[in-house]
Amino acid sequence: MYKAPVEEIAFTLKHVAGMGEALSNRLFGDLGEDLVDAILSEAGRFATEEVAPLAEIGDRQGARLVDGEVRLPDGWRELYRNWIAGGWNGLTAPEAFGGQALPDMLNVAALEMWNSGSMAFALAPTLTMGAIEAVSAHGSAALKDKYLAKMVSGEWTGTMNLTEPHAGSDLGVLKARAERRDDGSYRIFGQKIFITWGEHDAADNIIHLVLARLPDARAGTRGISLFLVPKFLVNDDGSLGPRNDLFCHSLEHKLGIHGSPTCTMIYGDGRFGGEKGAIGWLIGEENKGLACMFTMMNNARLAVGMQGVAISEAATQKALAYARERTQGRAPDSTGAGMSPIVEHPDVARMLLTMKALTQGSRTISYACAHALDMSRRAGDNRHWQERAALLTPIAKSFSTDAGVEVASLGIQVHGGMGFIEETGAARYLRDARIAPIYEGTNGIQAIDLVTRKLPLSGGDQVTGFIAELKAIAEAVGRSNLDGFGETAARLAVAIADLDAATAWLLKALADGRAAEALAGASPYQRLFGLVLTGCYLAKGALAESGDGKGESRIALCRFAAENLLAETAALRDRVVNGAASLAAARILLA
Amino acid sequence: MYKAPVEEIAFTLKHVAGMGEALSNRLFGDLGEDLVDAILSEAGRFATEEVAPLAEIGDRQGARLVDGEVRLPDGWRELYRNWIAGGWNGLTAPEAFGGQALPDMLNVAALEMWNSGSMAFALAPTLTMGAIEAVSAHGSAALKDKYLAKMVSGEWTGTMNLTEPHAGSDLGVLKARAERRDDGSYRIFGQKIFITWGEHDAADNIIHLVLARLPDARAGTRGISLFLVPKFLVNDDGSLGPRNDLFCHSLEHKLGIHGSPTCTMIYGDGRFGGEKGAIGWLIGEENKGLACMFTMMNNARLAVGMQGVAISEAATQKALAYARERTQGRAPDSTGAGMSPIVEHPDVARMLLTMKALTQGSRTISYACAHALDMSRRAGDNRHWQERAALLTPIAKSFSTDAGVEVASLGIQVHGGMGFIEETGAARYLRDARIAPIYEGTNGIQAIDLVTRKLPLSGGDQVTGFIAELKAIAEAVGRSNLDGFGETAARLAVAIADLDAATAWLLKALADGRAAEALAGASPYQRLFGLVLTGCYLAKGALAESGDGKGESRIALCRFAAENLLAETAALRDRVVNGAASLAAARILLA
Repeated sequence: MYKAPVEEIAFTLKHVAGMGEALSNRLFGDLGEDLVDAILSEAGRFATEEVAPLAEIGDRQGARLVDGEVRLPDGWRELYRNWIAGGWNGLTAPEAFGGQALPDMLNVAALEMWNSGSMAFALAPTLTMGAIEAVSAHGSAALKDKYLAKMVSGEWTGTMNLTEPHAGSDLGVLKARAERRDDGSYRIFGQKIFITWGEHDAADNIIHLVLARLPDARAGTRGISLFLVPKFLVNDDGSLGPRNDLFCHSLEHKLGIHGSPTCTMIYGDGRFGGEKGAIGWLIGEENKGLACMFTMMNNARLAVGMQGVAISEAATQKALAYARERTQGRAPDSTGAGMSPIVEHPDVARMLLTMKALTQGSRTISYACAHALDMSRRAGDNRHWQERAALLTPIAKSFSTDAGVEVASLGIQVHGGMGFIEETGAARYLRDARIAPIYEGTNGIQAIDLVTRKLPLSGGDQVTGFIAELKAIAEAVGRSNLDGFGETAARLAVAIADLDAATAWLLKALADGRAAEALAGASPYQRLFGLVLTGCYLAKGALAESGDGKGESRIALCRFAAENLLAETAALRDRVVNGAASLAAARILLA
Repeated sequence: MYKAPVEEIAFTLKHVAGMGEALSNRLFGDLGEDLVDAILSEAGRFATEEVAPLAEIGDRQGARLVDGEVRLPDGWRELYRNWIAGGWNGLTAPEAFGGQALPDMLNVAALEMWNSGSMAFALAPTLTMGAIEAVSAHGSAALKDKYLAKMVSGEWTGTMNLTEPHAGSDLGVLKARAERRDDGSYRIFGQKIFITWGEHDAADNIIHLVLARLPDARAGTRGISLFLVPKFLVNDDGSLGPRNDLFCHSLEHKLGIHGSPTCTMIYGDGRFGGEKGAIGWLIGEENKGLACMFTMMNNARLAVGMQGVAISEAATQKALAYARERTQGRAPDSTGAGMSPIVEHPDVARMLLTMKALTQGSRTISYACAHALDMSRRAGDNRHWQERAALLTPIAKSFSTDAGVEVASLGIQVHGGMGFIEETGAARYLRDARIAPIYEGTNGIQAIDLVTRKLPLSGGDQVTGFIAELKAIAEAVGRSNLDGFGETAARLAVAIADLDAATAWLLKALADGRAAEALAGASPYQRLFGLVLTGCYLAKGALAESGDGKGESRIALCRFAAENLLAETAALRDRVVNGAASLAAARILLA
């Protein structure tokens, strides 16, 4: 069973991702280490004791559609009530509406633990947080007053309604339509698919944020508006009014996250009588809905990255526990009598250490991204930190979610035949993890974003400045003269040079207008960046003086990553720099 | 829907894996190209038209245990009857018992197609074929006469009963026991788990091959005997007698291959009354059961490799069809109006070409392994070909099954959100594929076998001779002077040099008694070998004069593999040669 790694998370936040310095500089006001530790500890307890025990039944029963109502798995309604009662829903929400306005860093750490407990369950608050953010940033004062407090408390949940059957990655072609009403509200018509927690019975109301197109809107993404469309209309006194004209038509039958209802939503079908059209209110300005939606999408991408970290952590814990217990054969250097625990077999150890390194690497990248977000909002040099957050977001999303799939798959392998048996739980991690590289922008789209929009930030200075910081870490490893690092300093230097060369090549290709060539290597580049960050951040942690007696372990894991995983960076650089021609030539096979 | 790639399979058999030469040399007697083509074509038709359409219902319904009987999914009983009627069960079985004694090469090609149609269904004949082989090789004349004809026809199916809860990879500790009876038969007692097709309602009888230990047997693997234990006892006239004392206690709830009943079998429980103990007959000699079982295990390993190839092919077909239909966004070099088919986006093309290269690479490796088996049985220089087959078996099993998982996962990614929806069918391939790297010896165990038992064959001459053959292929690419190959010749030469260096290092480490160091890099070495073979065999196919007009495509795919996938070989060599120290040091994290 999963146990939240509170100490490792606190260490990573403070000593690697930058929270220690931020706290010292009073970036978060009165927030101090003690409160941070207390929140992490309590969030970890909730994840370990309340969420994780209900993950398996959630997977087995799944969400069910009965007579138009979605029933959650047994115990999940109560779990959600406990969640609200614990005050977890408003960690980062504005204080004016009952939130705690805590740093994003703290939120992603908590998100990690809740997703380790049950990714399907944690999706509900994740979506609500995104909706809160969009309404906070772009909603009118009236909308905020009417909706935010109950969304912050969690009494009402929120959703994002983007996708339509023909419009997934390409939102510009969506067809849902909105008609203006005389009172300033709108009527919404259309079908939306893949709506996470679009309908359920754990909250009194569900606040849908819906992208739709006005009759006179231009084609493409500049003709899309964002609307707030509640399941139940809300009276002026805050009480619930009649049912709005929207409903859940069906639930998807998915590979994983079974407890999370993935809904097809129908707007404006007239199912409940009266005039047709779901009543909604504009968020932000007409035809500028996509910009509003991006507010929540960037944070949602980091939140999805946390799902990858979370699955990696949970899968690693389970596999390691199994490998220590299960005995088979004799390990080559075994000194004991009888069979060896399989953890002693070199190949099993290799898998487990790979899992550990990828977990900690993706964790640190994601926390560093949250740190940049916090800095961009609270520190002086906003542009630098905005850019850093923008640069790190696609890497955090893609590297962490790819790692989640890889680690979960390795976790099954460590279990041998038992890994294929559902009751063991190892397979669920792979099934749940597999959606994360897809939604909130596929990892291929993250790579396009990274290469075409993030590398050129400040004329390339943001990324080259970042690489310079990484070089300093490698040099610090060299200066440390610690034997335990082995070849780490040299390995990091080579890997960073690979990143440097690939970056320069891509910037040149973009400047020359060779977009197809640059995009051919975008995904290998994204992984290259993530691996280099993994090595460097593991090194930063290993060099940190935490006083927790784990320095030797951290050095050993860093060395394993540097001397095993980072061997791949040369190949990735090569694929970026030299891979496009053969890819283009081979397209005749796909015609 | 899957369509058997009969032409590509025939090309690979004849022009890459060695069948053309074998036919010319009349290695298989009267067997000619025409008959080969006809058999492949008809097997492909059966897989495409009969098996594949029932895969989805098999997955959805699964095998069910009802009142101690296993019910197959709707239509599967009839499918199995049609299978028998088509005469497919005895392709390689001895002619004396109604088989066709056809080459293994033809059999693995057919296995590929059946597994592409439905891996869960194809497991039934796969297990029966293994049992036929063990009885043929080691059974007494009486056993053969009584059982083989009906196993060859498929009226009766066969199973392998190895695993017990505490004895998976390490068979030496199994506890099932056998007691001698006065009439020369034995009584068997014990529990076996993970028994594929251990019970079902499609055949009249099920012939279990069971490993058990005699009362006076020594501990370990040299105290294990193999028994034939039928579900129904068989009268001397061949009719079925009373039920034997064995039954299926429960079915596993698995990640995939739902249509295949995975049984816990109980022997000697007295469930059906009478004296306790399932009646069985010795196969081979007492205490030499493991050697008998290895007869079928080696072929079973190749058969599992075919499952990887099969899933890769089917997943690639499905993803490519989707990517040609689905439009989203505009590809960078798009010339048409409106959205582009996603196959035109470079990152999607990269995924699909990777899938194609891994599919064809693993196919060729597996066919080459089958060719070596055929040669070892029918050509003069047996030891060479026995060793070649032995060397290729762990690579065929591991590389193909790892590729199956990777390709199926990429297939989901190509589908985007639709890939996560079960009805699409892309997710099933990943769920089915995930067992193949585990059973018949985990891929980690294959790597141990490859490094510690196969590399030292003929004092290392077998592997170095093989590498010399690969160098000749790379040189032939260089001599061809075909522009389409790009940097292929140079890339192949570098990759082969990596394999050469890693091989030499491992042979030295083994000679020096540094087993733990060698085993630390065994899995990376195994993948390195598979990648190099992929590049070289794709090149061999691209150089072949097939006259089918696909030469340009084959050259392009070879170049893509050489300039993209083979970039990884340097990292793999490095992990073999340099990875052990950091792995050993990092074990403190696993304690």
